Amino acid sequence: MLKVGILGGGQLGLMFVQNALSYPIEIHILDPNPEASCANFAHRFVVGDFNDEQTVLDFAKDVDIVGIEIEHVNLEALKKLKAQGKTVIPDPEVLEIIQDKGIQKDFYLKHNIPTAPVQDENTFPVVQKLCRGGYDGKGVQVLTEENKDKKWSEDSVFETLADIKLELAVIIARNAAGETAIYPVVEQVVNPTYNLLEYLLIPARINDDIAERAKEVALQVVDAFDQPGIYAVELFLNNDNSIWVNETAPRVHNSGHATIEASASSQFDMMLRVLLNLPLGSTEMTSKAAILNIIGAEGHEGNAKVDGLDDLMKIPGAAMHWYGKKITKPGRKMGHATFTAKTYEEIIKQIDEVKPVLKSTT
Amino acid sequence: MLKVGILGGGQLGLMFVQNALSYPIEIHILDPNPEASCANFAHRFVVGDFNDEQTVLDFAKDVDIVGIEIEHVNLEALKKLKAQGKTVIPDPEVLEIIQDKGIQKDFYLKHNIPTAPVQDENTFPVVQKLCRGGYDGKGVQVLTEENKDKKWSEDSVFETLADIKLELAVIIARNAAGETAIYPVVEQVVNPTYNLLEYLLIPARINDDIAERAKEVALQVVDAFDQPGIYAVELFLNNDNSIWVNETAPRVHNSGHATIEASASSQFDMMLRVLLNLPLGSTEMTSKAAILNIIGAEGHEGNAKVDGLDDLMKIPGAAMHWYGKKITKPGRKMGHATFTAKTYEEIIKQIDEVKPVLKSTT
Repeated sequence: MLKVGILGGGQLGLMFVQNALSYPIEIHILDPNPEASCANFAHRFVVGDFNDEQTVLDFAKDVDIVGIEIEHVNLEALKKLKAQGKTVIPDPEVLEIIQDKGIQKDFYLKHNIPTAPVQDENTFPVVQKLCRGGYDGKGVQVLTEENKDKKWSEDSVFETLADIKLELAVIIARNAAGETAIYPVVEQVVNPTYNLLEYLLIPARINDDIAERAKEVALQVVDAFDQPGIYAVELFLNNDNSIWVNETAPRVHNSGHATIEASASSQFDMMLRVLLNLPLGSTEMTSKAAILNIIGAEGHEGNAKVDGLDDLMKIPGAAMHWYGKKITKPGRKMGHATFTAKTYEEIIKQIDEVKPVLKSTT
Repeated sequence: MLKVGILGGGQLGLMFVQNALSYPIEIHILDPNPEASCANFAHRFVVGDFNDEQTVLDFAKDVDIVGIEIEHVNLEALKKLKAQGKTVIPDPEVLEIIQDKGIQKDFYLKHNIPTAPVQDENTFPVVQKLCRGGYDGKGVQVLTEENKDKKWSEDSVFETLADIKLELAVIIARNAAGETAIYPVVEQVVNPTYNLLEYLLIPARINDDIAERAKEVALQVVDAFDQPGIYAVELFLNNDNSIWVNETAPRVHNSGHATIEASASSQFDMMLRVLLNLPLGSTEMTSKAAILNIIGAEGHEGNAKVDGLDDLMKIPGAAMHWYGKKITKPGRKMGHATFTAKTYEEIIKQIDEVKPVLKSTT
């Protein structure tokens, strides 16, 4: 029985495990948090730091295949494991490029991949991205004449502020033979008043030309990496209809969760197939879909419960994904809900109904 | 966080857990086998005999809701837990009727539910069903003038041999409010040469009139039980187009596995909803589907692996379900494969291709 080891046992790990349990494999998970989502859901769960070289080497000694659910993991360990002949996906060289936003930007420019141009840091407005450690929107800020004193001192990329019409994402699976499977384009729907992510819609409400170009650009990124894996390519569709790559995650991604309910093979199933070098699955969708994050409510910190579950479950085609985190905090991502329906109108109506009541409290 | 305890941690428990992990609950499992499918996949896994009263009482002390994945569990414990005010589904009274084939037969007759008539045990041919302990087709035999000496001595029901055209099954979820959700009728496709189950097809290839009548009879059974739960009602469609209830399982069932891939809410999701008293899900199907069991090959006994996984995974819409059993034996059910497609022809072609190579060996 093949042994698959995953660095990270959070919600992405949990959703991977839920699907991977259908396959003839052993699942090993490494996470520093003894109460991680996967803590009770692996053949072997090891508490340890995936940023520590020796910890990763010790963990992986007994596994055949190493995968990740977070990109900030120890690179030296992965290089040694690869040298030992283990399958490591994503390849350490891909991770090395992605872990540093400066190297990532150079990589796009070198491969003629459309992306925000590098810009002088004293010409405003300018986007500052920390080279290392950014995650989930952290480590990025827009600097202007007015707030230029807030500039971070750490190594950063400075780039032109995109004139964004829509934020899109494309998830692509690539196997060892270089074959790819491309999911429909995902649209991030932003609240115009608060400029906050409201929900994700798949397929995006864009015309075929834009969809094709978005997929082409994403595929260009994946072809440039030239290694097996799951890639989530985040894109800006600008107001002049040009498309820029924002950044790439070399793993399953928040923007792809609706594939669990709406696609023949989900992004988590595809990750398993890529790790095991099985034939890629089908990205065909059975309906339109959206996901809405379930967030920790203001004024609540402590043992988590969820409000609005009944309201959600009475919607035909709606599904719950609770991430198994014990503690809720204001703004913490505690789970998500998926909505599937034949039309965008139906889905948006469902989201509008549930959004005010679906949250995590204590 | 609600604590859900399940008696039994085999493959049905595993598929329940895979889905239940999406909900804000704690999952507790009791199974006598320390290497059961669920052994590493529960918040709390307890090794113990679910037929022992005290073991069940101890296990359930700390849970809010008790469910089952096998009907042969200790009834006295469940009655006491119910008396303590815990939610027990299925109700012990339902289980008491179902655990004994004699009582079950009387129940059908009393409620005017069509079923094979009781027959004198010395009029041949006659079907002998052991009252207790039968499972998965065991404990049933046809007696004729020629083999009447093989009659078992244990308490039995003797009934008329059905003149079977098709074997069907209907799965129904019923909640505490008495609302029901009915899945499409399942057809058991039998190999005409060997008289062995080949695969299960959903929806069954029957006309609307027969489908409606099958659902009506199944609903009659569930209404007669008059308690929340998941019910798998196995039916004979006779050559004169009459329908007889064969037997009922008060739980998720082998005949409903294709609902994982092909239904909005699977039978495992519906079980969770019934246990938590959430709104029932949608039984709408997104495609036609079939399941094929993966069986331990002749001449192989020992540590299990699977042959033919690549052949299966290259079929668009096919899915693997490995049950996590360590040891394979000839004839042992090790997993199943699901096939989804727009037409029966496509599905049957896929099954015919994969069937010769998909099996468990050592």
